[in-house]
Amino acid sequence: MSTAQLVSALTDIYRDHPLLIHSILAALLGYIVFGMGWFTRSDYQPKGKHCYVTGGTQGLGKALAESLVRQGAHVTVVARDVVKGEKTLADLKAIAQPHQIIQFISADLTDAKSSQEALIKASEPFDGKCPDYLYLCAGFSRPKYMMDSSLEEFKAGFDGVYWVSAYTAQAAVKTMIRQRRTGRIVFVSSFLGYTSFAGYTNYSPGKYALRGLSDSLRSEMLIHGIKIHIFMPCGIVGPGHDAENAEKPAITFKIEENDTAIQPAESAKALERGLRKGYYSITDNIVADFARLRSDGGVPGNNFFADLFYLIVSSYGFPFWRMTADRDVRNGRQAVLDDYEARGVYDTPKTK
Amino acid sequence: MSTAQLVSALTDIYRDHPLLIHSILAALLGYIVFGMGWFTRSDYQPKGKHCYVTGGTQGLGKALAESLVRQGAHVTVVARDVVKGEKTLADLKAIAQPHQIIQFISADLTDAKSSQEALIKASEPFDGKCPDYLYLCAGFSRPKYMMDSSLEEFKAGFDGVYWVSAYTAQAAVKTMIRQRRTGRIVFVSSFLGYTSFAGYTNYSPGKYALRGLSDSLRSEMLIHGIKIHIFMPCGIVGPGHDAENAEKPAITFKIEENDTAIQPAESAKALERGLRKGYYSITDNIVADFARLRSDGGVPGNNFFADLFYLIVSSYGFPFWRMTADRDVRNGRQAVLDDYEARGVYDTPKTK
Repeated sequence: MSTAQLVSALTDIYRDHPLLIHSILAALLGYIVFGMGWFTRSDYQPKGKHCYVTGGTQGLGKALAESLVRQGAHVTVVARDVVKGEKTLADLKAIAQPHQIIQFISADLTDAKSSQEALIKASEPFDGKCPDYLYLCAGFSRPKYMMDSSLEEFKAGFDGVYWVSAYTAQAAVKTMIRQRRTGRIVFVSSFLGYTSFAGYTNYSPGKYALRGLSDSLRSEMLIHGIKIHIFMPCGIVGPGHDAENAEKPAITFKIEENDTAIQPAESAKALERGLRKGYYSITDNIVADFARLRSDGGVPGNNFFADLFYLIVSSYGFPFWRMTADRDVRNGRQAVLDDYEARGVYDTPKTK
Repeated sequence: MSTAQLVSALTDIYRDHPLLIHSILAALLGYIVFGMGWFTRSDYQPKGKHCYVTGGTQGLGKALAESLVRQGAHVTVVARDVVKGEKTLADLKAIAQPHQIIQFISADLTDAKSSQEALIKASEPFDGKCPDYLYLCAGFSRPKYMMDSSLEEFKAGFDGVYWVSAYTAQAAVKTMIRQRRTGRIVFVSSFLGYTSFAGYTNYSPGKYALRGLSDSLRSEMLIHGIKIHIFMPCGIVGPGHDAENAEKPAITFKIEENDTAIQPAESAKALERGLRKGYYSITDNIVADFARLRSDGGVPGNNFFADLFYLIVSSYGFPFWRMTADRDVRNGRQAVLDDYEARGVYDTPKTK
């Protein structure tokens, strides 16, 4: 009869402290009703919209561009590589209806001026109007220990994650406001934008920074009715993932050994599902949801009950995961030191 | 008798599911013992150490430099302004013993090469040895809506928060490792590195990025025995705070209206208290502790019982705080739109 006794005990507590219990329930109810966005219907609808996809020639960006074309959107793909761009353009046109406008623009988005110009060029067939939905998927990852990173790699790693999206975001926000238009900006951060470990000093700062920009902009754009979202995917199969793994330090590999990268189309599907539901922070994996509830700084939640579960589990589970990651670093320590010794990294010979 | 009944009910649950309960208790115990760093004694001891304080001519940095000199450390202060630098040098020498080495170096730390050169120059009186403890306090905040920020302000705001510390951190880590030395690097982020809102698109990305760098480095430097800490202060009284408030947008002001800035010496004291306790994430305010438990991505905690309290309170309280901040933005919305109308920000006249 343990359940009955528990209920009876709780009833007693309620009888002794009715005001307290009512306050807690009212607060919880308010949280459920107003905090969870159940009454903010999402109006995500790509059909007929101009969608601007950076990094859209491979991986997540390309999968997303294909999905948007299939839904009847006009799509502009922006990336540096012209060969991949032309290929993507052909692939997208093959699945588009004749009235859909499909464009490819080659631009180096780590440059502010190129980012602004690409946005202007994309707007030309639309009477100069800013794209409606922007999906900022461009970015790359080259994990490396800080000791092995040149200054240039440290800098380029950051720029290729943060500025590659931030310049476009600033240009788009200003254009939308000036044109009295609204729209949506979707940043793409990463699980490694919630937490980080050995090997990611060139990468996590940029992914955290995107979250800082997005968290601030989400609040600020309530003024202008521009919607901000941030996607926090785990590993996605593709050329980006292969290049990342080619040089990944041994300890970083070990920490991630149980992670499974998913297909770009699957990740894109999770992103659009979140957009349709009106979520602010969108994940493609339950592990990222655990991280989210211990890392999101109180931004609007998604599903109240699921979030409660994630919060309870991650409050205890997440520090445990971090401890095992720390243990992996300690276990891999000697191999790194031996390697540095062999490569003559140190100024002076080993003593003792 | 509600308490007795509750105990009896819990006893029944234990009798029915002993394995489950034992697993939970074992997990909790492991978490307390190994996760909280109770057995990692801190060896923070500035006496006789070479302490390198960036941004050390005012505010937190200066208060910290004074405290370090009083504790018997050799102190190098780095900042751009030579006049303030000479003044600080005189102030520090006035409280130092004759054997203590006190230096001021003028450098623009947003430049990578200047950051490296300042570190080398600081090491000269110490046979070229890297400083032992680095406190990266340099940085500034100029809140502004993104619409009102020029590209240059957006870029400079970021560089003046992130690169001003990141370049020095990279140079110091590499030098320490090459010299087979250990030491401590203390990053200074902010409450606004945990969460953000309207007005901080030039600032929060850099403060979040510092956390990303620090979270990754903390793990990576377990390899080399270099200790990493991050300080997350709330507002600190001083010229930086005055400059920030001079241009702060109305909505940002409103969201922060209940915040009280503390004295630099008080903030420095909280920082050193955290260092002595061996904390990784250090705060100077309970509000930042609430934010920490909902934003830290599972990094090592501080006091287990206090953290549990912060976690429980912030899990519900923090989203509520964010909702009131969102409400402040919505309430301030019309004034911003009217101002933009008056200033002719829009490309086309108002319709209707």
